[in-house]
Amino acid sequence: MSTRAVHAALSWDGELRFLAESGTSRLLLDSEGLAGPSPVQAMAMSLAGCMAIDVVHILTRGRHPVTSVDFTLDGERAETEPRRLLRIRLHCRVGGGVAASAVERALQLSREKYCSVWHSMRQDIELVTTSQVIS
Amino acid sequence: MSTRAVHAALSWDGELRFLAESGTSRLLLDSEGLAGPSPVQAMAMSLAGCMAIDVVHILTRGRHPVTSVDFTLDGERAETEPRRLLRIRLHCRVGGGVAASAVERALQLSREKYCSVWHSMRQDIELVTTSQVIS
Repeated sequence: MSTRAVHAALSWDGELRFLAESGTSRLLLDSEGLAGPSPVQAMAMSLAGCMAIDVVHILTRGRHPVTSVDFTLDGERAETEPRRLLRIRLHCRVGGGVAASAVERALQLSREKYCSVWHSMRQDIELVTTSQVIS
Repeated sequence: MSTRAVHAALSWDGELRFLAESGTSRLLLDSEGLAGPSPVQAMAMSLAGCMAIDVVHILTRGRHPVTSVDFTLDGERAETEPRRLLRIRLHCRVGGGVAASAVERALQLSREKYCSVWHSMRQDIELVTTSQVIS
């Protein structure tokens, strides 16, 4: 499979739920966010996951002694249809003996250069990233 | 929880994998797309799911006798970093005695008015939607 291509197939599972497949993965999407994530929740997880993976990749490649990485995302949607994402705050917490500047640099590289998901999103979404190193 | 807000929390699960949570849902994201979807696969599923849910919602609200709805998504990414999505084809297949024009109209309404995920994405992504009614 070309890494340039992405495929997905979805079938209706009743109510406002769809069973999605991509590669070997399956995900039940539920408009209500009950039986599985809503589409916007899945998008939020994909964005945070993309940046989190970049940060781990950059820090471990740089031989920083990372012991834990946690991300939280808080997003705000418009009140009116299509209720798109307007503002997103991503907070990154890294454990281990890592310099705060290295974490900030990794976040910046993800945002500016590597994050496929972020660069597929509207660039006028207000994206604020913060970070913290814990011992 | 305000429907305007979306939250997610992610923790590193080793290698380039993150366990993501949003609401009551959990999703393991894997850069390689093996243990779970890659972030771009998850984004693709969220986009297709958002439009698919809109289409079911619009058709059933209009009392069309829908018996099945399937979506396929084929996306193409850029060759160079950040390897963002460039082109997406979405094909919608609806079963039941539904007029092809009603399916096309539902897709158009999702794309132009309702789809939160699509409207959170770059609008210069080439998005082609097609549909088919099966008996």
